[in-house]
Amino acid sequence: MPHRYFTTQVRNGQAWLSPEDGHHFVRVMRGKVGDQLVICDTNAVEYIGTVTAIEGEDVTLSLSEGYPTVAEPGVEVTLFLGYPKQGKLEDEIRHGVELGASRFVPFFSRYCVATPKKEDQKQQRYQKIAQEAAKQCGRGILPQVEVALPDFSALCARLEEEQYDLVLFFYEGGGESLAQVLARHPGLKQIALITGAEGGFSAQEVEQIAPLVTRVGLGPRILRCETAPLAALAAVMTLTGNLE
Amino acid sequence: MPHRYFTTQVRNGQAWLSPEDGHHFVRVMRGKVGDQLVICDTNAVEYIGTVTAIEGEDVTLSLSEGYPTVAEPGVEVTLFLGYPKQGKLEDEIRHGVELGASRFVPFFSRYCVATPKKEDQKQQRYQKIAQEAAKQCGRGILPQVEVALPDFSALCARLEEEQYDLVLFFYEGGGESLAQVLARHPGLKQIALITGAEGGFSAQEVEQIAPLVTRVGLGPRILRCETAPLAALAAVMTLTGNLE
Repeated sequence: MPHRYFTTQVRNGQAWLSPEDGHHFVRVMRGKVGDQLVICDTNAVEYIGTVTAIEGEDVTLSLSEGYPTVAEPGVEVTLFLGYPKQGKLEDEIRHGVELGASRFVPFFSRYCVATPKKEDQKQQRYQKIAQEAAKQCGRGILPQVEVALPDFSALCARLEEEQYDLVLFFYEGGGESLAQVLARHPGLKQIALITGAEGGFSAQEVEQIAPLVTRVGLGPRILRCETAPLAALAAVMTLTGNLE
Repeated sequence: MPHRYFTTQVRNGQAWLSPEDGHHFVRVMRGKVGDQLVICDTNAVEYIGTVTAIEGEDVTLSLSEGYPTVAEPGVEVTLFLGYPKQGKLEDEIRHGVELGASRFVPFFSRYCVATPKKEDQKQQRYQKIAQEAAKQCGRGILPQVEVALPDFSALCARLEEEQYDLVLFFYEGGGESLAQVLARHPGLKQIALITGAEGGFSAQEVEQIAPLVTRVGLGPRILRCETAPLAALAAVMTLTGNLE
């Protein structure tokens, strides 16, 4: 299988690798003129690219007709993630990209053990992790990781600003059956999923967010905060036919 | 919520904590006569226990009427796990216990990067990890982790020996839709799920196991070996109504 690269530099049947990927192709892969690559334009369109020129680490390709990436799910899922301790957010992002999430928005809330610290810098690292995962699992877009929202009110404000077909709040205290909620909403496109950090949500937070969300449960077993988003995402992808 | 302990020592309306849990209750929790605990008999029956005697670290309780643990899923899932590198198997076990798996059987196969080494000792550590996860997530049984099977033929032999209502082989090359397979098999009780290690399965292995399994896919994205069993298990639990 030819190597696969993302690039936004696609014009008139030609494409150019990013400096980082150019370096990788020329120095690490020892690529040559005439080599074939799969080029993805980050908007879920792919091409077969043939390398036509290499100057230093600048790599130019001529492209086949574009075709849609098969790997993008039919639903666009934003994961709002209660900020967990230690490196768990990185694992949540990796798993989430593979399972098809399009966007990640970490947030702090009352019972978070983690506290905000250099979140701008961390966002860059998280974004890089998402990008690497997207390459490895064959996504057609680069899922975005946003800078963490500083508190629960910021999360609620974001939900009020943005348009989703469905906002699902996965609450440890239980809620409706996900299967039943999804059956009531056929043809969903934009879905938001919200899961908490280690400490869960306070009663006040549950009340504050109630008008903005549909509350659902993930069953009687207590899931750790790093398991909940994966279970939620896998369940949504399964029930919308995007994990088969 | 009262603390929760597993014990197999349940007789005539009384229970005794294991030495390890007795130590925990007496020394760490500083428990006293009269304290209430939730006692689970490891067969999915729970009791409210009242401590009636403490001698050293020996703890005796008198029990309420038993009631069924709510947390056990309606399907008994055995996860056959291609042996992954490094500590990934531990994570797979933790996630798997939370998501409701009953048994874990790691196996080596042709493209495994890991090689068998002191697997008897490792099994003990894995079993302990499963036990801790079961306590934390509120399971009613103690999921079992078996000693790793030494090769793919041993896996096939095991599948021939054991009785399952359905054996699902999650293959990176794709297969039937899980939802359709499960719809064809209502009322399943005993299910086996098989996922591979980093290197996937060889063509020969796929052929060898074919008569013993139903081949299913997990969608067009390439899941890492530590994501695949979680996705598979979450999907099965979702579609059988055990994740709501």
